[in-house]
Amino acid sequence: MAKLYFYYSAMNAGKSTVLLQSSYNYHERGMKTLLFTPAVDTRAGKGKIASRIGLDSEAVPYDNKFDLFQYVKNEVSQYPEIKCVLVDEAQFMTKQQVMQLTEIVDEIDIPVLAYGLRTDFIGEPFPGSMYLLGLADNLVEIKTICHCGRKATMNMRIDSEGNKITKGEQVQIGGNECYMSVCRKHYKSGDSGTLTRRKQLDSRECEINNI
Amino acid sequence: MAKLYFYYSAMNAGKSTVLLQSSYNYHERGMKTLLFTPAVDTRAGKGKIASRIGLDSEAVPYDNKFDLFQYVKNEVSQYPEIKCVLVDEAQFMTKQQVMQLTEIVDEIDIPVLAYGLRTDFIGEPFPGSMYLLGLADNLVEIKTICHCGRKATMNMRIDSEGNKITKGEQVQIGGNECYMSVCRKHYKSGDSGTLTRRKQLDSRECEINNI
Amino acid sequence: MAKLYFYYSAMNAGKSTVLLQSSYNYHERGMKTLLFTPAVDTRAGKGKIASRIGLDSEAVPYDNKFDLFQYVKNEVSQYPEIKCVLVDEAQFMTKQQVMQLTEIVDEIDIPVLAYGLRTDFIGEPFPGSMYLLGLADNLVEIKTICHCGRKATMNMRIDSEGNKITKGEQVQIGGNECYMSVCRKHYKSGDSGTLTRRKQLDSRECEINNI
Amino acid sequence: MAKLYFYYSAMNAGKSTVLLQSSYNYHERGMKTLLFTPAVDTRAGKGKIASRIGLDSEAVPYDNKFDLFQYVKNEVSQYPEIKCVLVDEAQFMTKQQVMQLTEIVDEIDIPVLAYGLRTDFIGEPFPGSMYLLGLADNLVEIKTICHCGRKATMNMRIDSEGNKITKGEQVQIGGNECYMSVCRKHYKSGDSGTLTRRKQLDSRECEINNI
Repeated sequence: MAKLYFYYSAMNAGKSTVLLQSSYNYHERGMKTLLFTPAVDTRAGKGKIASRIGLDSEAVPYDNKFDLFQYVKNEVSQYPEIKCVLVDEAQFMTKQQVMQLTEIVDEIDIPVLAYGLRTDFIGEPFPGSMYLLGLADNLVEIKTICHCGRKATMNMRIDSEGNKITKGEQVQIGGNECYMSVCRKHYKSGDSGTLTRRKQLDSRECEINNI
Repeated sequence: MAKLYFYYSAMNAGKSTVLLQSSYNYHERGMKTLLFTPAVDTRAGKGKIASRIGLDSEAVPYDNKFDLFQYVKNEVSQYPEIKCVLVDEAQFMTKQQVMQLTEIVDEIDIPVLAYGLRTDFIGEPFPGSMYLLGLADNLVEIKTICHCGRKATMNMRIDSEGNKITKGEQVQIGGNECYMSVCRKHYKSGDSGTLTRRKQLDSRECEINNI
Repeated sequence: MAKLYFYYSAMNAGKSTVLLQSSYNYHERGMKTLLFTPAVDTRAGKGKIASRIGLDSEAVPYDNKFDLFQYVKNEVSQYPEIKCVLVDEAQFMTKQQVMQLTEIVDEIDIPVLAYGLRTDFIGEPFPGSMYLLGLADNLVEIKTICHCGRKATMNMRIDSEGNKITKGEQVQIGGNECYMSVCRKHYKSGDSGTLTRRKQLDSRECEINNI
Repeated sequence: MAKLYFYYSAMNAGKSTVLLQSSYNYHERGMKTLLFTPAVDTRAGKGKIASRIGLDSEAVPYDNKFDLFQYVKNEVSQYPEIKCVLVDEAQFMTKQQVMQLTEIVDEIDIPVLAYGLRTDFIGEPFPGSMYLLGLADNLVEIKTICHCGRKATMNMRIDSEGNKITKGEQVQIGGNECYMSVCRKHYKSGDSGTLTRRKQLDSRECEINNI
């Protein structure tokens, strides 16, 4: 029986790397995969999953109206060698789309690996994450670290001077904000870490900056 | 550094047993613990945690207005040998109370072990679970099984004849409903398992029947 | 497909409680289980699994010559309602017996839940643990705590005055030694924790004292 | 308090990718790391960790005489910005070297992330793995798949025609053998999967072929 996995982490942990590696593993063993990425995420170009470490792959872009179950059902009927579905930035899914993922698992019997954040910059669960955390068969953490060396679990939005921002839209288009993954203690205190902050801003590695 | 743990499972997995065993382990090593249980849950008597397998313990009852952080802070200042906080049926907490748990961890530096369900009988996350799944440092599953032998992840409400109920309040007082923990596939099909169902209803082991 | 699980922990974590709860869960859903315990472990009486917290159950005693695969195969052919095999103190198994567990899983298609320690009092893996850690489909930790509040991962043998013992047989019959589960740092320093030590010795809760 | 992690998996799961991503995460946050790789593993060049997906990095080569604790202690005294130690192919370590890793964690208070296989081609634990599985603070699985779609947990050595080999040295220098990661059922039956096998052999992606 197939399962729905939710691989969750704070930002910049390497979720896309793990996704691309998993897809690679399937291909290496002679199977095919289907990759999905939100249409709104155009950082690497529309319909592309890229990881900061230098890997990338084509992916099917999906918006809020997109029916993942129907799409996968059609593809699998044509290409039965498809054996796994992988979804990047899955926190952006609607409740209905998470239900579609459970249908892919329960009806088509293909494993689904969804990757995403748990909470947004004010600590609220994303809609997709809320249902993935509630309904996935397996919850798996991908760890990353705060600037203090502890595990990072929160995503702090900061302005161009490194100050914590606590107001604004959950997903923001074209701003100058950046994000830092930090431990809950430093999230509460608003400490983004001087050294790290400078490096982050210099290199403009702001995740989801333009969406 | 202390951590906030969320031990989640479907109903009737043995959450209370694991909670009571963890508390026992602390006591055995010369430390004390604080136990909390919802005031609304009077199945075992108000302010009591009991497991179906035959264990029980006194616990502090809390309602939606109860400030867990202040209570723990006061207790610890008087009894510094308190080294762990354990919360049963944590799905019933408010968002604010989950935040209080993070304060106990981050400010008082005492580990908090919260035990609860992920979703209710229609598959919606409970308020407490939503924030515990989003903010806990560690998510740990306590497994149980569907009548088919697969892992149970869903909680199905059934009437006295074993039929799935899909309407009603999230928490119901004094009804005749029972709950079955089932796999997602049998949750969708509404199959509560004849043999199990009969046994369940005969023995009146309906969890949270009266709350 | 069934799986072989190894639930590992330091001593006095509540392994037997979790085992008995899992067995209870199967029975509650109308299925039967088979329990095994080492014949050499007669603390609770031969052929009995008991947990410190007050639960117990009958179990089939096995020695090093016992063929678990044949036994289970015979039982299942007579009682097809057997749906799970649970093994206590599985660290004492031989390599061959761990292989038999994999056969129960792979050929009879019944899940096996084995519970045991990882290492002995000098930090060496037990024979059964070595192969369970190497071959189990899922490794699951049952956590307990050191007297310092950190996670305990090591089993320290102590004499009647609380001093660490570093010489002797892996399994000792009828001695006056006790065991403390401690973190690796306190294992190395030999600190068994005064308060805890006194309590332990007073109450004669020495695990596996007579085997 | 730092911890010793053992990330284990079957071959070709992407262990090196995860290692390199973790190291990258530390650097991105302004910290430095120390990477180690067995001197005997010269597939990517001596003192180099490379992943099949296309990432690589310099690493310190170590042989069986190498003292990791002393080396790390010296480095950290000079470069206090070193905040993490990562070890590739850790199954090849001696017992003494695993003890050195615990010293790095317990005395220098730096986390150690060791990556390796659990068992060799005949299902026996590697020396390093045996002690890492027994002593690590956290065991974390990196999953990969068998050609049948199930989780792969075993490493099968095959000859140039895809037949399972059951005799030979644990580590073999310069042979024509390849390895397939398979589920335990297909490991027992010796089924290396026609399609996968052909692809594997064609592309000469035989892991640890020359060591």
